Amino acid sequence: MIEIRELGRYVGEAVDLGGWVETKRGHGKVAFVVLRDGTGSVQCVLVKKQVDPATWDAFESLTQESVVLVTGEVRADERAPGGFEIGVSSLKVAGLAAEYPIQPKEHGVDFLLDHRHLWLRSSLQRAGLMVRAEVEQAVHDFFYGRGFVRIDTPILTGAIGEHAGTLFETDYFGERAFLAQTGQLYVEAACPAFRKVYCFGPTFRAEKSKTRRHLTEFWMVEPEVAFADSDDNMRLQEDFVSYLVERALENCREELALLERDTSRLEHVRPPFPRISYTDAIGRLKAVGSEIEWGSDLGAADEQILTESYDLPLFVYNYPKQAKAFYMKENPDDPRTVLCDDLLAPEGYGEIIGGSQREDDLDRLRERIREEELPEAAYSWYLDLRRYGTFPHSGFGLGVERTVAWITGRRHIRELIPFPRLMNRLFP
Amino acid sequence: MIEIRELGRYVGEAVDLGGWVETKRGHGKVAFVVLRDGTGSVQCVLVKKQVDPATWDAFESLTQESVVLVTGEVRADERAPGGFEIGVSSLKVAGLAAEYPIQPKEHGVDFLLDHRHLWLRSSLQRAGLMVRAEVEQAVHDFFYGRGFVRIDTPILTGAIGEHAGTLFETDYFGERAFLAQTGQLYVEAACPAFRKVYCFGPTFRAEKSKTRRHLTEFWMVEPEVAFADSDDNMRLQEDFVSYLVERALENCREELALLERDTSRLEHVRPPFPRISYTDAIGRLKAVGSEIEWGSDLGAADEQILTESYDLPLFVYNYPKQAKAFYMKENPDDPRTVLCDDLLAPEGYGEIIGGSQREDDLDRLRERIREEELPEAAYSWYLDLRRYGTFPHSGFGLGVERTVAWITGRRHIRELIPFPRLMNRLFP
Repeated sequence: MIEIRELGRYVGEAVDLGGWVETKRGHGKVAFVVLRDGTGSVQCVLVKKQVDPATWDAFESLTQESVVLVTGEVRADERAPGGFEIGVSSLKVAGLAAEYPIQPKEHGVDFLLDHRHLWLRSSLQRAGLMVRAEVEQAVHDFFYGRGFVRIDTPILTGAIGEHAGTLFETDYFGERAFLAQTGQLYVEAACPAFRKVYCFGPTFRAEKSKTRRHLTEFWMVEPEVAFADSDDNMRLQEDFVSYLVERALENCREELALLERDTSRLEHVRPPFPRISYTDAIGRLKAVGSEIEWGSDLGAADEQILTESYDLPLFVYNYPKQAKAFYMKENPDDPRTVLCDDLLAPEGYGEIIGGSQREDDLDRLRERIREEELPEAAYSWYLDLRRYGTFPHSGFGLGVERTVAWITGRRHIRELIPFPRLMNRLFP
Repeated sequence: MIEIRELGRYVGEAVDLGGWVETKRGHGKVAFVVLRDGTGSVQCVLVKKQVDPATWDAFESLTQESVVLVTGEVRADERAPGGFEIGVSSLKVAGLAAEYPIQPKEHGVDFLLDHRHLWLRSSLQRAGLMVRAEVEQAVHDFFYGRGFVRIDTPILTGAIGEHAGTLFETDYFGERAFLAQTGQLYVEAACPAFRKVYCFGPTFRAEKSKTRRHLTEFWMVEPEVAFADSDDNMRLQEDFVSYLVERALENCREELALLERDTSRLEHVRPPFPRISYTDAIGRLKAVGSEIEWGSDLGAADEQILTESYDLPLFVYNYPKQAKAFYMKENPDDPRTVLCDDLLAPEGYGEIIGGSQREDDLDRLRERIREEELPEAAYSWYLDLRRYGTFPHSGFGLGVERTVAWITGRRHIRELIPFPRLMNRLFP
């Protein structure tokens, strides 16, 4: 059996195909079946006089999404989508489908999410997830190519990552364990062993949030680099994001076209990205009438205003200490702020990266843990990294679904993960 | 600042290095510091007369694992490990380390695991995890190169994967959620969309097991292929495992040497691998005096006996239905058995893969779910895959840590994951 994507190599030859019936139509003497096999679609043509009765009967019985095994000749045909069609000599039903729930009409999103295991077969969903898969391979290729060592960080942890109160908890043989919100603290521990490391995996937030930009389970890539400062960190981020976009443009042309993505908005995504300090950002927001005060984190609306005038992702750097996580390094030039950055994607997509230089001073870090009222004992190993050879280091976390939503131009990140987990959705 | 692995490009030039002090020694007039920067180690030589007093004082203050910034000339030196040494002109302490807990002596394994965040810096641990990282990149390259689409499957699930009773559970906004034991059911759902898919991520078993081959959290790669039967499945497995071994041999020579791995045992790992049916395996075990009866799963001791006479991984195929999971396809030639295989690594390493053709008959699958007393409602979406275009398909799961343990020749899989989770270990 061959795959539909390989048809070009078999023109004029008889091949075996297997796949799912997308549509069928017949005119009494000639019939057409559009077959999808996961690598492409092709029209199969049956001429009643030229096939045996069993094949014609099989055609007549076909329902949407039934699985068929087809033998036929590959014909080049410029009018056909994909450029080929199959002149069928034999067709067998391998699995007759019951009436398929998803019809070529508008369905509500709840219905579609309830049927996510079937909705995956739809062309727009397939295209979005193909881009996701390409971006993920690009993530690994980027870091592997630069000599980073992949470090898989644990999901089950005793230590809280960032935000107590938004943790999923489980019983771990009598102890309390939390599902990781981040792998960062662990990749920091791996830096003295490997210098440049990254983790890539699922992270969890038990947030009661229902926006189009939140999932309770989402994937993050988190690099960490020894002897890198906040400026190095931003340079790595712009190189990385540019590479991901480039790979999608290079290898997902068809998918982006199907998604009607305006790729001209992506073509020029190249370093350097513009940068603005948090303090300047507040000034700019106030100048256009915002009521935001210095000290607050930026909201989605603020991000929208700031990014409007750029067609590249925008760095906002050095936020106030109280708006950010405990592990970020105090800014020696302005101790009210920390050496950090958020990277905001254009076109209203907003934050796709949060990064920072890490606090490498033992006393200041311990003080911040106490200020945040985090359980110090759970962080004793993390503090050890400052006791035994502390070192300047920086890193960031990029959210996979948000990044792919931006690259594909999709509004809801729930479509860019195969099986989204939302506050009210644990199924399928 | 450059990396130690790049020294060869800078012979005769002055460079800046940063890293951790592995050892130091001095003779009053000349001093030596072995510096590790995560990409390699190099000896730095200080001549008292040629450096300023601040640099000499800095040297004197150094403790194990202190972080230093060094400027000096790169000299080629055949006697030096790595082939280079640094003639230091300046040395600064960036982070003086407190007395380091891990000394160059024997420590108990509990002590080392308690200090896993520091133990990672040891050369054998680094070597093992470097091989892991290479194998993981090879996993992605293998499937990407063959046109598989990566599908990230959910960790938080309503459905039980295989073994009720060994599940971690969490409250999910008032519902019960389980941590996934496998992504398999979900990759099966993605087959009709993409034909060939795989997932790669952490999986969880709340097993009260303390063997050297068990972790409560471990990483698996699980490919799934539409229109592949059990035989195709075994061929994919032997190609895949051979590729992983080849990549480790190609790119981890130094690490395998450090680990004292006898790589001659790996060089000939090439398809095809030997195959024996479960029924023949039982015959062979009985012939050498085993008391095992047809119907039981094989234990570690049985696997040991079977693999002894092979220097390649060994497939044992078509196990009894009652010894295997509910989703495996009944063997039409012997309905007491299912179309499945375990792949046993040689040298006593045992099972690294479990694979099977999946039951694609709706009624038989439902019957098996009932026999196993699994909650049918939680599997309704999985049964849908048999209602709406059922198709022959097969897949397998390879355990990353077990595979890397075999490739590296390490006995305990807990060393081949950065932060192992064991029954009594959730920290660091």
